[in-house]
Amino acid sequence: MLHPSITLGPAQRDTRVPKTVQEQCGHFLLCLLAGSQPGCHSGPGCSEGDKHLTPSSLLRIGQLSNVDLNEDIHELETELPRQRPNEIPHNEKLLSLKYESLDYDSSENQLFLEEERRINHAAFRTVEIKRWVICAMIGILTGLVACFIDIVVENLAGLKYRVVKDNIDKFTAKGGLSFSLLLWATLNASVVMVGSVIVAFIEPVAAGSGIPQIKCYLNGVKIPHVVRLKTLVIKVCGVILSVVGGLAVGKEGPMIHSGSVIAAGISQGRSTSLKRDFKIFEYFRRDTEKRDFVSAGAAAGVSAAFGAPVGGVLFSLEEGASFWNQFLTWRIFFASMISTFTLNSVLSVYHGNAWDLSSPGLINFGRFDSEKMGYTIQEIPIFIFMGVVGGILGALFNALNYWLTMFRIRYIHRPCLQVLEAMLVAAVTATVGFVMIYCSRDCQPIQGSSVAYPLQLFCADGEYNSMATAFFNTPEKSVVNLFHDPPGSYNPMTLGMFTLMYFFLACWTYGLTVSAGVFIPSLLIGAAWGRLFGISLSYLTKGSIWADPGKYALMGAAAQLGGIVRMTLSLTVIMMEATGNVTYGFPIMLVLMTAKIVGDYFVEGLYDMHIQLQSVPFLHWEAPVTSHSLTAREVMSTPVTCLRRIERVGTVVDILSDTSSNHNGFPVVESNPGTTQVAGLRGLILRSQLIVLLKHKVFVERTNLNLVQRRLKLKDFRDAYPRFPPIQSIHVSQDERECMIDLSEFMNPSPYTVPQEASLPRVFKLFRALGLRHLVVVDNRNEVVGMVTRKDLARYRLGKEGLEELSLAQT
Amino acid sequence: MLHPSITLGPAQRDTRVPKTVQEQCGHFLLCLLAGSQPGCHSGPGCSEGDKHLTPSSLLRIGQLSNVDLNEDIHELETELPRQRPNEIPHNEKLLSLKYESLDYDSSENQLFLEEERRINHAAFRTVEIKRWVICAMIGILTGLVACFIDIVVENLAGLKYRVVKDNIDKFTAKGGLSFSLLLWATLNASVVMVGSVIVAFIEPVAAGSGIPQIKCYLNGVKIPHVVRLKTLVIKVCGVILSVVGGLAVGKEGPMIHSGSVIAAGISQGRSTSLKRDFKIFEYFRRDTEKRDFVSAGAAAGVSAAFGAPVGGVLFSLEEGASFWNQFLTWRIFFASMISTFTLNSVLSVYHGNAWDLSSPGLINFGRFDSEKMGYTIQEIPIFIFMGVVGGILGALFNALNYWLTMFRIRYIHRPCLQVLEAMLVAAVTATVGFVMIYCSRDCQPIQGSSVAYPLQLFCADGEYNSMATAFFNTPEKSVVNLFHDPPGSYNPMTLGMFTLMYFFLACWTYGLTVSAGVFIPSLLIGAAWGRLFGISLSYLTKGSIWADPGKYALMGAAAQLGGIVRMTLSLTVIMMEATGNVTYGFPIMLVLMTAKIVGDYFVEGLYDMHIQLQSVPFLHWEAPVTSHSLTAREVMSTPVTCLRRIERVGTVVDILSDTSSNHNGFPVVESNPGTTQVAGLRGLILRSQLIVLLKHKVFVERTNLNLVQRRLKLKDFRDAYPRFPPIQSIHVSQDERECMIDLSEFMNPSPYTVPQEASLPRVFKLFRALGLRHLVVVDNRNEVVGMVTRKDLARYRLGKEGLEELSLAQT
Repeated sequence: MLHPSITLGPAQRDTRVPKTVQEQCGHFLLCLLAGSQPGCHSGPGCSEGDKHLTPSSLLRIGQLSNVDLNEDIHELETELPRQRPNEIPHNEKLLSLKYESLDYDSSENQLFLEEERRINHAAFRTVEIKRWVICAMIGILTGLVACFIDIVVENLAGLKYRVVKDNIDKFTAKGGLSFSLLLWATLNASVVMVGSVIVAFIEPVAAGSGIPQIKCYLNGVKIPHVVRLKTLVIKVCGVILSVVGGLAVGKEGPMIHSGSVIAAGISQGRSTSLKRDFKIFEYFRRDTEKRDFVSAGAAAGVSAAFGAPVGGVLFSLEEGASFWNQFLTWRIFFASMISTFTLNSVLSVYHGNAWDLSSPGLINFGRFDSEKMGYTIQEIPIFIFMGVVGGILGALFNALNYWLTMFRIRYIHRPCLQVLEAMLVAAVTATVGFVMIYCSRDCQPIQGSSVAYPLQLFCADGEYNSMATAFFNTPEKSVVNLFHDPPGSYNPMTLGMFTLMYFFLACWTYGLTVSAGVFIPSLLIGAAWGRLFGISLSYLTKGSIWADPGKYALMGAAAQLGGIVRMTLSLTVIMMEATGNVTYGFPIMLVLMTAKIVGDYFVEGLYDMHIQLQSVPFLHWEAPVTSHSLTAREVMSTPVTCLRRIERVGTVVDILSDTSSNHNGFPVVESNPGTTQVAGLRGLILRSQLIVLLKHKVFVERTNLNLVQRRLKLKDFRDAYPRFPPIQSIHVSQDERECMIDLSEFMNPSPYTVPQEASLPRVFKLFRALGLRHLVVVDNRNEVVGMVTRKDLARYRLGKEGLEELSLAQT
Repeated sequence: MLHPSITLGPAQRDTRVPKTVQEQCGHFLLCLLAGSQPGCHSGPGCSEGDKHLTPSSLLRIGQLSNVDLNEDIHELETELPRQRPNEIPHNEKLLSLKYESLDYDSSENQLFLEEERRINHAAFRTVEIKRWVICAMIGILTGLVACFIDIVVENLAGLKYRVVKDNIDKFTAKGGLSFSLLLWATLNASVVMVGSVIVAFIEPVAAGSGIPQIKCYLNGVKIPHVVRLKTLVIKVCGVILSVVGGLAVGKEGPMIHSGSVIAAGISQGRSTSLKRDFKIFEYFRRDTEKRDFVSAGAAAGVSAAFGAPVGGVLFSLEEGASFWNQFLTWRIFFASMISTFTLNSVLSVYHGNAWDLSSPGLINFGRFDSEKMGYTIQEIPIFIFMGVVGGILGALFNALNYWLTMFRIRYIHRPCLQVLEAMLVAAVTATVGFVMIYCSRDCQPIQGSSVAYPLQLFCADGEYNSMATAFFNTPEKSVVNLFHDPPGSYNPMTLGMFTLMYFFLACWTYGLTVSAGVFIPSLLIGAAWGRLFGISLSYLTKGSIWADPGKYALMGAAAQLGGIVRMTLSLTVIMMEATGNVTYGFPIMLVLMTAKIVGDYFVEGLYDMHIQLQSVPFLHWEAPVTSHSLTAREVMSTPVTCLRRIERVGTVVDILSDTSSNHNGFPVVESNPGTTQVAGLRGLILRSQLIVLLKHKVFVERTNLNLVQRRLKLKDFRDAYPRFPPIQSIHVSQDERECMIDLSEFMNPSPYTVPQEASLPRVFKLFRALGLRHLVVVDNRNEVVGMVTRKDLARYRLGKEGLEELSLAQT
């Protein structure tokens, strides 16, 4: 059964052999240099010289031949300095190896199949009902969290603005407004400090809007801590504090993250943080199921944020789904609907007009009346032009933010510095706002306006400072004001100055170590210049009836947001639903499309940019179009560490403990009849499964291979999910190391494979469509020659000059 | 290179071996009985005794061993009577073998790869731009076709109603209304006759709404003629005539089919019917690309029909996409938007109020004002109850239609009978309408109403017959009237009688040999009973303010439509967009969901039912939940006809000419080193490719295998797409039969494979996610043991009592 032979594949080495091979080989080659046999065990085996290990007890199947050794050693030496973590490890051409992948392919081993076969039709119906119940709960809880955020923000911000307003009103008369400025800036900075401290010191992953993180999660990348309860708590508190602190941020983006965490938590029926296991929903404790619920949570979040249930579904699909399924979509939609409905009901009750359901989202764009604000066909070119402007401004925003982020990565990586920066931004925001309001002479009659905190300042009695409606207000309200205030509410100077200032403030704010979204600031910037544009148009056409500035504010908002985030279908639908008017769909789509095309010409979208700056192995929809020249043989990682169907415990432990290679999936092989090469693929086993096997000591004596192993149940694997213990925590005695472990019933006997000749797009399609984590590359005789994982595919990218290859880094 | 040996697989026969094995083996076994060698060539080889064929020159790799022969022969005998086409071949437990499958997996052979590698980045951008241009054209043309239908219907129907109205007005005074009835019935019957004749005699696939056919196409089933130009012409004329003929039908459903045909036509840059090839868009001449455009066309159709661009995208995705892709979706959305925009612009101009864009779809539900017709939270249970009613009525509709369809399949299969039936229905519809109007005493004041053709009949002057608004009108207008007429416009008796009559008429009409949709009749039935329900509620609650009957008419319409067609997300969004009011989303979703759950309890959705009655091998989203006990070994077809890499031309011709098995994909095999079995998988070649090879005589002499073959280009394959000539039309001389053909550069060298042990859900997932046509089943050594095609997967279904297996039939 056991072939004590080293199996090195044929010498098919290619000049294109990816960097990762050298990295993987690194240790291996050092062993070779130290005089060990080829095929020597890397990791502990090499340095500690474990005597129980024969050099051949570890299978490494790959493409290394002696001919290439010199070349490898040479490359190794030149590579080494580059591998050392640099102080500036971030550039665009890097792919991090620290991110693990989620596995959306269920390991169809005997245990799993036995369970599935035991479950009858009725039981499956129960499972299905449970899924619906969970989705309803996700919707309700997400809605409630959104309500909580909204109500708390409204009250705290109201309190703050009242205090500052009273103060300003007091000092306007008797002079000494600098005290008011000081009060405002201090209030903001201290609130933001708290918000920043909890993020920086307790849970850094709660920073930002969380949309890039959720994009990555749905794409299949495991971002540590991203769906934990602690993250949710910090996120909710953080976002409240950021908004109350007067930063140029919104509370909508973070709802998507919050919804996802809620979904991940509920669907597992337990909280690992709280150490509570409710013993329900155990069936859903695997990546596939969890991911589906997280999609629903993200959709519920969008739905609660914008009152856009369909937009939410489309967002989830756009980001996550290559695995579209009608029932799943329907459930996601259900969660979305419940979420917006819950928010709507609770907020209606809170606002005192119960049952009228007038607040479907955290932000409502207000009623856009088709009659008053309809558009005609002649305006289409104007909208397209606005899209172009939005695309350019968006690209500028992203480019500035890119440099800022690089700066932050290099110099502001200590938490205290991050908190200080956040406080600085808060103070500056208040100051800028104050100065702008102070210098503005734009007074408007207070009568008939809907301003929440009208600042009189130096205006006449019965008038208010128009600049203050934009700066001295939560951004959500400013957006709605810009959309709906009657023509003439703002003078062009006010709008121009506001746009300029807010643009830079928002750009500086995004990426701070606080929980905050970029949707609302983008909308606000766009609404401001859109309205300005509308007013100019009105001047130009001598006050034509169709040039309602509110309509242009809406299109400007869409253009700016589209230029920054570059979302497509989902954003169109979100905007359409938020305006509550279907007829705006067409111009919004045109504007977004133009903004995207123009923006993409210059620089990537904001989220994609940040994902790339973090070197996440993100898989796009398709392989780069020009990658047909690459085949599986060239992209795969090799050599592959394989296990035998019945393997020595010591070998397994050594492989798992090997720090030089953090492999997570191991092909299980046997020799094909008639050959001596032990590489015939029989199955695939995961690191997590091996860990559980070792933990439960499912061993048999070497002398008695027929002995029945201790029976493990699927429940044992589920209980350990998703935080499998590290191998270091599992103690295996010297005697146990000599035992054998039978992998037959735990391995997946039918892993997906591709032949070596398959082109990269073909491999990519299979990998992406099925959400795989490991894809075994086999030769004509079904013998393992390599393994394709996420990083092997994510490395190839379409650059400006064609196909480019990212280098891999451990950071 | 050539192993003249018969290769029979190991005896792994299973009691679960599917019927198809016996059917495929049928001829083979007869040969055996006739004294031939095992492995004898089926088809011509057996009967004509082609002397050039050695018994071994044909590879059939399978699982047949002598041990099983008796069993097979026994089964064969008992099976034979069942296989003979019965006069009543249609029952639910049958799967037709006559439908072929589309192939969404591109055959990645050397030619293809060479072309892809030649294309650089800029050229790919051109291809991408072409895709957008095509989508824009699809949108524009679909919108124009919708306009054409709308305008022609409006004029012809207006003419008809005016003639009949004048006649009725004339005879009301002086008696003899039976002449009016005769006129009305004759007009209807003659118009419908023309509509039915063109469908029945020229293009039967244009019958019905076309939605089931497009569902099948997007699912991957090739329905003959479904996307041809002729079909479009017949469809458009047919639908105009049906609607003008006064049948209980709508013109919306057929728009989806029309849009799809337009898309298929434009994207190929040629019309095979018109024999015009514009030499453009040649890159898109394959199933994958064509299908993407057809999705866009279907979406554009929905969008034009209901003014619901997002709904259209979701419809396409729900029906077609397991292959979701962000760019594709965005393009589909673009086509949808253009389509509704075109329709809107043209109709606005036509109606004289240019530029105001007030007609986004063929049917608009009119403005639902949130203030007047808003709902409160207490109404939710009422809506759910309406959903239950809709589900029950929908199930009743479907059940009645099922029996009717069975009756039609048995007795009304001759075109003349079909035309006669259509005429009968048209006459009866007119008669029922007339009698209902005649007997009705429900008079309403004409002032302030929006009735198009007010029939006074026996009402006082200044009043009109209320029943006539429902019957004496195009169904679209009746629906809108039921939604928006002020409370009190209809008395309950009128609505009750109308619901009852229209229900049976619509049920009888669906399935007639005319082009017509079921959306509008369903909406109309639902609106009628919904309004009735609203009125009753108003009585019960003594005229509470919230019981606006129009709102209930809308919910009733949703419930009835949902109960009949059982669409989910897309229908919600379509309804939401058609009402133009986002806040109705939640109750509509609840109603549709309830209707679906209740309806599904009794009987399937109408479209699915018709698909099943036609025994189409339709693949659902997932494998039946309880099918984990089946493995690839049990579901696959076997034996498989394989080809060698360098094959004798005669053998290829014989295999393709074999009428007993209409295989479309052939694994290309070679012997693995060290074995004598010629079954090592090397590639897959399609029948269509072989046909092109034979047509272009890409042969080499047997004695000179190294000779360079005549070079074929990808263009040769594209030119033949999609109507590849039958093998009978290709003449191969006796000398040529002895030549060899080298398949290496034409076969797909990396077909997707599954191991024998993979469970059915796993196989299903791979097959469905990648849109495959052939999936090769291999053993541990990568040797071919079977083939999974669409019918092998579609056969397993979840019935009431668990997993059930359909039998296969040639009809």
